[in-house]
Amino acid sequence: MTLPAPLTGVVPPVCTPLTPDREVDVRSLRRLVDHLAAGGVRGLFVLGSTSEAAYLTDRQRSLVVRTVADHLAGRLPLLAGAIDMTTPRVLDHVEAVTAAGADAVVVTAPFYTRTHPAEIARHYRLIAAASPVPVFAYDIPAAVHTKLPADLVLELAAGKVLAGLKDSSGDLTGFRQVVTGVRARPGLTGFSVLTGSETVVDAALSLGADGAVPGLANVDPHGYVRLDRLCRAGDRERARAEQERLVALFDIVGVGTTRMGGSASALGAFKAALHLRGVIDCPATAEPQTPLSPDEVARVGKILAAAGLL
Amino acid sequence: MTLPAPLTGVVPPVCTPLTPDREVDVRSLRRLVDHLAAGGVRGLFVLGSTSEAAYLTDRQRSLVVRTVADHLAGRLPLLAGAIDMTTPRVLDHVEAVTAAGADAVVVTAPFYTRTHPAEIARHYRLIAAASPVPVFAYDIPAAVHTKLPADLVLELAAGKVLAGLKDSSGDLTGFRQVVTGVRARPGLTGFSVLTGSETVVDAALSLGADGAVPGLANVDPHGYVRLDRLCRAGDRERARAEQERLVALFDIVGVGTTRMGGSASALGAFKAALHLRGVIDCPATAEPQTPLSPDEVARVGKILAAAGLL
Amino acid sequence: MTLPAPLTGVVPPVCTPLTPDREVDVRSLRRLVDHLAAGGVRGLFVLGSTSEAAYLTDRQRSLVVRTVADHLAGRLPLLAGAIDMTTPRVLDHVEAVTAAGADAVVVTAPFYTRTHPAEIARHYRLIAAASPVPVFAYDIPAAVHTKLPADLVLELAAGKVLAGLKDSSGDLTGFRQVVTGVRARPGLTGFSVLTGSETVVDAALSLGADGAVPGLANVDPHGYVRLDRLCRAGDRERARAEQERLVALFDIVGVGTTRMGGSASALGAFKAALHLRGVIDCPATAEPQTPLSPDEVARVGKILAAAGLL
Amino acid sequence: MTLPAPLTGVVPPVCTPLTPDREVDVRSLRRLVDHLAAGGVRGLFVLGSTSEAAYLTDRQRSLVVRTVADHLAGRLPLLAGAIDMTTPRVLDHVEAVTAAGADAVVVTAPFYTRTHPAEIARHYRLIAAASPVPVFAYDIPAAVHTKLPADLVLELAAGKVLAGLKDSSGDLTGFRQVVTGVRARPGLTGFSVLTGSETVVDAALSLGADGAVPGLANVDPHGYVRLDRLCRAGDRERARAEQERLVALFDIVGVGTTRMGGSASALGAFKAALHLRGVIDCPATAEPQTPLSPDEVARVGKILAAAGLL
Repeated sequence: MTLPAPLTGVVPPVCTPLTPDREVDVRSLRRLVDHLAAGGVRGLFVLGSTSEAAYLTDRQRSLVVRTVADHLAGRLPLLAGAIDMTTPRVLDHVEAVTAAGADAVVVTAPFYTRTHPAEIARHYRLIAAASPVPVFAYDIPAAVHTKLPADLVLELAAGKVLAGLKDSSGDLTGFRQVVTGVRARPGLTGFSVLTGSETVVDAALSLGADGAVPGLANVDPHGYVRLDRLCRAGDRERARAEQERLVALFDIVGVGTTRMGGSASALGAFKAALHLRGVIDCPATAEPQTPLSPDEVARVGKILAAAGLL
Repeated sequence: MTLPAPLTGVVPPVCTPLTPDREVDVRSLRRLVDHLAAGGVRGLFVLGSTSEAAYLTDRQRSLVVRTVADHLAGRLPLLAGAIDMTTPRVLDHVEAVTAAGADAVVVTAPFYTRTHPAEIARHYRLIAAASPVPVFAYDIPAAVHTKLPADLVLELAAGKVLAGLKDSSGDLTGFRQVVTGVRARPGLTGFSVLTGSETVVDAALSLGADGAVPGLANVDPHGYVRLDRLCRAGDRERARAEQERLVALFDIVGVGTTRMGGSASALGAFKAALHLRGVIDCPATAEPQTPLSPDEVARVGKILAAAGLL
Repeated sequence: MTLPAPLTGVVPPVCTPLTPDREVDVRSLRRLVDHLAAGGVRGLFVLGSTSEAAYLTDRQRSLVVRTVADHLAGRLPLLAGAIDMTTPRVLDHVEAVTAAGADAVVVTAPFYTRTHPAEIARHYRLIAAASPVPVFAYDIPAAVHTKLPADLVLELAAGKVLAGLKDSSGDLTGFRQVVTGVRARPGLTGFSVLTGSETVVDAALSLGADGAVPGLANVDPHGYVRLDRLCRAGDRERARAEQERLVALFDIVGVGTTRMGGSASALGAFKAALHLRGVIDCPATAEPQTPLSPDEVARVGKILAAAGLL
Repeated sequence: MTLPAPLTGVVPPVCTPLTPDREVDVRSLRRLVDHLAAGGVRGLFVLGSTSEAAYLTDRQRSLVVRTVADHLAGRLPLLAGAIDMTTPRVLDHVEAVTAAGADAVVVTAPFYTRTHPAEIARHYRLIAAASPVPVFAYDIPAAVHTKLPADLVLELAAGKVLAGLKDSSGDLTGFRQVVTGVRARPGLTGFSVLTGSETVVDAALSLGADGAVPGLANVDPHGYVRLDRLCRAGDRERARAEQERLVALFDIVGVGTTRMGGSASALGAFKAALHLRGVIDCPATAEPQTPLSPDEVARVGKILAAAGLL
């Protein structure tokens, strides 16, 4: 299907439920899709960092996209990450995920290698030239160790290389430069600026973001959809209250951080919450992530209860 | 073939020659293998950073390993990188490169994700358990943004998880901790400690390293083999003179650094030198790396000439 | 004078005008204080990063505080940085700036040394125990290479060690944790949470910040004071328009960044703007900062004009 | 006194003994100077990182230099750190330490501010122009978060701005570039290249370093002096054995690292060792460093005993 331009509202990065032996749990994944759709989201983003794309084999990645595309059957637009180190490898993923049904691809700057802004621009140009679907830039310096400069994003937007930006940088200043830059240039109408920062979605929308891609929306899609509607309706007080409830809920990502990596703690918490809420069958995360302990899961449960979700 | 334990001498990380349209140039690759073998190297390492593994598709990676394995026909041990973000994806590469003929695999810490020492250890344990061939750790913080702690390497060596270390960290202090740790523990005899730092190979050998994996050995394998022999013979003065000639030669990696990424500059220089020396047909590097300009190639040529290689 | 608790509104970090031979230009400094006071600011912060505290000798630092304290004569509360590497050196500055008339001190985490959260906490406790005036934490990871964790700030607030936070981290997520944490704990009423991020003051106020400490307010105090009032009045549309005008004005900090350090470019631009607006006599920055070129100053002028300030 | 050019041999960065209430312990400092002189060192370096310069007040800094200068009475050349954020503040320290008797000053790149290579060069030029004694560059990226590029050091050496380099970067590759660069240019004879890396002094000397400034030489000056002599005599086997004994001894710096900052752990261990060896009266480190626990001190003692020093 054709993507709305701009894409607005809540577009969750979808967790990838796994079985105890770390295979994609197709039935849980379908239930998760239904859970999110029922919450009122406006699109889905698979194979991003929250989806554990970095941990899924190529076979598993394709299975995820196919499963979600088939299950959606056009109900919602489907974005898919094409996460790999450099252009030639990303192009292979673009081919795979579009064959499997993705309506757009989401691509980071090159990583592992030592790169340069001119090479990042070339990377996106080559990918856009080859992709049958729109390309979104994925700004995630915590993963790729490069920040996409706002002026580079705007230049690539103006050249019709990029259709949108998924910003997971945590840098609201650079994000605003993109938002206001898009508004200032008439040719950029339709370019989508989406925030991935769970705890400042109200602020991002208030300064002009089109939508949000919050990992925490797996756990509480209704909450983020309410937040989005309250912001659009200009109901500041209730929007802030809703956002603050979600800020408190976001504490689940910290339950494991002293003894495991940040990815394991955050993704483990999202999955534990989905499991406690009955959406997925098994909270396992992919190898080599440390699993949450029963005690840490219990703390996730308490935080869920305090947020009214259990 | 079975790897010597420890592996000693010069084991170059082999460049991957490409055609002008960025396909693997199989004939040039074979010539490069012959060039290195003629220089007296003791093994080859394909699909490392110098091989542009980060830029090669899975199909190209397999072609590289098969080509080199077939051409070597057992003349030299063949190590292959299995470079990817996490355990499940690395395991797929381990299967592919060993099917294609690799005698050992070389594996980095997880990257892209936020990891933890306990997860790095688990990563190596899972890979070693599944790999049909020995596993070397690849310490390359400039790429993966994590430094392998010396005590973790020693612990994994003692547990027979790792067969060796390829150190590209530039940190001779940590490297020495591994070298002396290996020597201090009788059970670790046979563990290979190899340096990837082109300009301090003499120092690394002198403090007890088993061998070297210098990218610059693509350009001058004879020089590195001479250096290794002089060091082993205890001929300090001539060893230092040889190393200093190679230090001067290493200046080629800097010809492009102001206007491109560090990878493009270094790999572009290695390939330009191999092209100027008549070993490979085309100096192209993979996308999206910026190519060297004619002027920059000319500076590579001057440095080669000064080192007596043209 | 006693500080309001919490301190609210706009509290500019005051530039330090210098003569052509890099002495404190006392007359220009007094004019700058009047310019800011006339703009409606609610306090002044001297000897912060914007004040070039890192470049001022101890004699100059004392002169700055005395000059501003005497000139204010109690019209506005005066905060002063006590910027140095560790506790004993900071304590000397606390003594000096309070002797010279500061109503509060602003202190970073230790820097230059390799520190630890437990040592950062101890640092603030020792300083608070010795300081005759309230202590604000200054969170500026770009300078000190440590981020103050939100829970540490809240713990020190609860223990009455800290009276407020000046956040120059650019991390709105952590900032919000402090803001909501303060509101959630009754004992913390009066703790001041101030943002130093020029381009997202509207967002910070909207999520509950008490006030702002924007370097750009040197150039346009009236604009920031208007922004603060519009935000408090709930006039979202006009607040956003005002903030966006200031975002465009903030482009001045980038005029020099390709050929000098970020500090030289930003501070040089603030001073060039103050000079062009007739507030200070000389735009010189301290050594060893590269001065702006005439061309770069002309670009500052154009941006000022576009913002209606020339 | 005039500094030898180049300065050679072992030049320890002298710890600053403190009393239990954190005053400079003048008597212990004198004993430490005698202990080092008796070990055969060729100079002393006070007010560096190992001296806790970052923690000493200006008054304490002057007292340290005066005490050591008076006690040496010309027996050995005395270098002193002038450690501060920027040029004007460093110049004040240069004046103070030379008035107190320093024969040379040791200066880092600017820190706390965001700087640029052109500004670093200007910083050193201004300091050299004003300093009555030779200026050494102090390359310590772990503290100042900037690495001095080898070509910048060589350029400043050629311009007679710098008299030497104290390299605490841990980067032997860049260090070698300076060493070979100095040798390659006739005009640079007399420039001193000194390593601060405790565990690779043999390697540094073997590639041409003039001398070493190892913090660990406080604990075992005789060992480092033996190492230096063995290296100069070309007795490789005994040099390596001596260095490896010192590598094992260097483990003391890690006894506290899980619960305190790296500075506290390393400096605490040096002082605990000096106290256990009877050289200083009290092992206290400056605030806000966490002190070693009795258990951690006991581990220092065991390591000392294993190295034959108790």
